[in-house]
Amino acid sequence: MTASSLTLYFAPGTCALATRIALLEAQAEHTLVTLDFAAQQQRSPEYLAINPKGRVPALVTEHGVLTETCALLLYVAQRFPVANLAPLDDPFALARMQELNSYLASTVHVAHAHGRRGNRWADAPESIADMQRKVPQTMAESFEDIENYYLRDSGPWVLGNRYSVADPYLFTLARWLRSDSVDIAQFPRVAAHQARMLERAAVQKALG
Amino acid sequence: MTASSLTLYFAPGTCALATRIALLEAQAEHTLVTLDFAAQQQRSPEYLAINPKGRVPALVTEHGVLTETCALLLYVAQRFPVANLAPLDDPFALARMQELNSYLASTVHVAHAHGRRGNRWADAPESIADMQRKVPQTMAESFEDIENYYLRDSGPWVLGNRYSVADPYLFTLARWLRSDSVDIAQFPRVAAHQARMLERAAVQKALG
Repeated sequence: MTASSLTLYFAPGTCALATRIALLEAQAEHTLVTLDFAAQQQRSPEYLAINPKGRVPALVTEHGVLTETCALLLYVAQRFPVANLAPLDDPFALARMQELNSYLASTVHVAHAHGRRGNRWADAPESIADMQRKVPQTMAESFEDIENYYLRDSGPWVLGNRYSVADPYLFTLARWLRSDSVDIAQFPRVAAHQARMLERAAVQKALG
Repeated sequence: MTASSLTLYFAPGTCALATRIALLEAQAEHTLVTLDFAAQQQRSPEYLAINPKGRVPALVTEHGVLTETCALLLYVAQRFPVANLAPLDDPFALARMQELNSYLASTVHVAHAHGRRGNRWADAPESIADMQRKVPQTMAESFEDIENYYLRDSGPWVLGNRYSVADPYLFTLARWLRSDSVDIAQFPRVAAHQARMLERAAVQKALG
């Protein structure tokens, strides 16, 4: 374990799983706090004092609180460089990693959220139901982009032979396909990646 | 000028402005190709061969094409370190920068897009009109978060005294407030940042 003072605020089934896996891959000492979303703990005054946006993940560090998965994953990789979780000194390869991470955050996660949190973007129940109906289509289209564009040169991992924090993030969001009524088998590279990730000790521990 | 072989695909009024400003701040030699969105040039076979997602920005480099603003901004900062456009060696400060950039991409840009591209997430005309009506609210809420959370320790720039690529990105998306019927004067820190950015030579050149 690497000495550190980190606390990750987490909830099952959310994108916070990606940061949890990254911390375990880095063998970073950290405290895990699991919020009960069914009880709306993410909206409690105590949690809003930590993250006013009322979402997970949030990572409390010695220097302050950090949010947003793309930022947290790079932070873990940079703070624990021995774990070699990002090509920190190669601008092009790092940009490739960030490119997929950003796509996962701003396109894939957003597509999924229209099935659960449509009231962020519209008010009428009919609009929200319309959004929900479209989720299988938008998620399938997103994963076609991932299969054919982001994984076009794929070795076993997103960056080829090199495992990086893009892998737990892709793994986390691909787990949402089933509940969004999309068959992962349509995307053989994504499906193989998912299976490969499940063999990793850090992933098994994070899910356990 | 720093020698390089970069081509930025751009369109006026889009988030590609942020990467254009960053390249100018870095004094990075680059070719600018402006697409005519009114003529749907972003959907032409020629452009889809460069970026199959059919969007801007895309940056053609010697090693391949990169997309997604969050990735491009970090790439410019890391590739042209003399320009000092990111705290590359400070994991916490870099995560702060990435945190705002990721929020701009996955929350603010997405809120705005519901006014222009609602058909990404729903089909019925009534749903799309409902989304459009909500944009002033979601954009105002996003900028309240920026004003009160992301700029809470603000010096003149997003990272305090240190200018970074988060500044042109914030500048670019704050320019959308007017067309989204939100008065920027509600957010004094954002408004002051906007005015300060307009004084910079790189910004004037990018807009000119």
